[in-house]
Amino acid sequence: MINKLIQKIQKTNAPIVVGLDPTMKFVPEHIRRAAFAEYGETLEGAAEAIWQYNKGIVDAIYDLVPAVKPQIAMYEQFGIPGLIAFQKTVNYCKEKELVVIGDIKRGDIGSTSEAYAVGHLGKVQVGQSFCSGFDEDFVTVNPYLGSDGVRPFMNVCKAEHKGIFVLVKTSNPSSGELQDRLVSAGESRTGGEEAGERPVYEIVGSQVAAWGAECMPESGDYSYVGAVVGATYPEQGRILRKIMPRTFILVPGYGAQGGKGADLVHFFNEDGLGAIINSSRGIIAAYQQEKYARFGEAGYAEAAREAVLDMKRDIVSCLN
Amino acid sequence: MINKLIQKIQKTNAPIVVGLDPTMKFVPEHIRRAAFAEYGETLEGAAEAIWQYNKGIVDAIYDLVPAVKPQIAMYEQFGIPGLIAFQKTVNYCKEKELVVIGDIKRGDIGSTSEAYAVGHLGKVQVGQSFCSGFDEDFVTVNPYLGSDGVRPFMNVCKAEHKGIFVLVKTSNPSSGELQDRLVSAGESRTGGEEAGERPVYEIVGSQVAAWGAECMPESGDYSYVGAVVGATYPEQGRILRKIMPRTFILVPGYGAQGGKGADLVHFFNEDGLGAIINSSRGIIAAYQQEKYARFGEAGYAEAAREAVLDMKRDIVSCLN
Repeated sequence: MINKLIQKIQKTNAPIVVGLDPTMKFVPEHIRRAAFAEYGETLEGAAEAIWQYNKGIVDAIYDLVPAVKPQIAMYEQFGIPGLIAFQKTVNYCKEKELVVIGDIKRGDIGSTSEAYAVGHLGKVQVGQSFCSGFDEDFVTVNPYLGSDGVRPFMNVCKAEHKGIFVLVKTSNPSSGELQDRLVSAGESRTGGEEAGERPVYEIVGSQVAAWGAECMPESGDYSYVGAVVGATYPEQGRILRKIMPRTFILVPGYGAQGGKGADLVHFFNEDGLGAIINSSRGIIAAYQQEKYARFGEAGYAEAAREAVLDMKRDIVSCLN
Repeated sequence: MINKLIQKIQKTNAPIVVGLDPTMKFVPEHIRRAAFAEYGETLEGAAEAIWQYNKGIVDAIYDLVPAVKPQIAMYEQFGIPGLIAFQKTVNYCKEKELVVIGDIKRGDIGSTSEAYAVGHLGKVQVGQSFCSGFDEDFVTVNPYLGSDGVRPFMNVCKAEHKGIFVLVKTSNPSSGELQDRLVSAGESRTGGEEAGERPVYEIVGSQVAAWGAECMPESGDYSYVGAVVGATYPEQGRILRKIMPRTFILVPGYGAQGGKGADLVHFFNEDGLGAIINSSRGIIAAYQQEKYARFGEAGYAEAAREAVLDMKRDIVSCLN
């Protein structure tokens, strides 16, 4: 799947992923009105609204980008109906040949991580049958529990030709509270050996590189164990790029969170690959920005398309 | 909700939470057969089987314990039908007056954590209405993203009188890879001030204590921001108990994962409170142990009841 992602990036010339993170305040009024008319102001009504909204966006951008990243929390907040909209969105995007990165940030003890891995990337055994739950192509994984929590995902990825992105340095303002802590030289209380004083994100980055070395596809330069590093921390991105040379980096935080095109150069390798930049609000709610106001609410999908084209120009010009 | 949990612990004299983590291999054959006869070997069939299995367990133990902890991964692996079974389980346990701790281990950037908090503990706005998604009483939260990722849960807890347990030191073998790393004296790269060299779990424990101080109920000694510390690490439990004196500790890892009653003493305060011990497999699959084999598959629920009574004796005798 990492090779499919890379091929699609090369074909579209767009190392871009569109974050499908719908909230009700982004959904144009005509879509909300129609959904509420059918289902009322209920979870079902909300789910119908975000599904129709997503469908409009996907129809407008699917030929421009290699991948989408639905953030499951934005669906889970609407309970079961919301999760049905998540599943419909995943399936629709796959029909459109988009690579789907489920932004689920799961991670637990071994047997529990296995259940998440099976439910989102693999197949679960029921009697003599094997059934798919959500069936994304990639998911994001939280590393706080250590390798027990990550290996079950690696195993399912190997069997199913899928991939993960492990959180290393997240884009949010408080990410440094834990991730920037300096770890003292050469030891943890349960062993491990590294020299010098290094921040937690470097320790995790080194682990991701090691896990990734075990998870190389039969051909190609990049592992199917990737990393998440926020666009808002370009200096850390530069360091992590070196620590994890064969790791694909998923980079959130461009646009609305403050990351700029010029900040992104260091996330890429010299082959022009190795990173994919996410924008969510900046694309899907572009019509609410002054720059794209001419499209109006009714033209929200066309505004999203225009915003993707602008983002592509910004990133490609910085890479050249 | 923390006070309700404490009152129920006192009333039942059982600082015990039963982990409702069903897997197909725990479900007795007669339940599986009936579910598959109705729905086939499908996700729906699996979901029906785990729901009926759960119902039997809950009916057998609800008068003995204050709380249950369904692990959402075990439901999510069965996709939408599995999550419907999760919701039915949550609702049924609440009808039985059990406190429900959703073991979801979510945590993300601020706006995304807010969506999780609203979906699991609060109400989401849809038009002019406010709707509940999953509506647990407590959830578990992952701290890797720092306070941005935790505060939205705190805010919803404050408004809705609910609570959280933040992962501090998890029960799994590899938890030390990150959580035991020694952080060097007095600084993180983004500020912060602590003296001396301390493991990551102590840093997180201190943060939990600080968050907890902001989240005290109107009366009572314990905060509604709790912590997760594994029974498998009693020495760390002893230290964390002192760092977080007003924090309720959710202690997984008793029984099947290797934690013993005698290990648990240090997780409690001198008031005999401050901790609640989880057992999952050890209770819900007790009938598969030699000790409870006399109950047979058909008596799986009675075996679970007996295992709860034994666990209660073990813990209460250690506390005295």
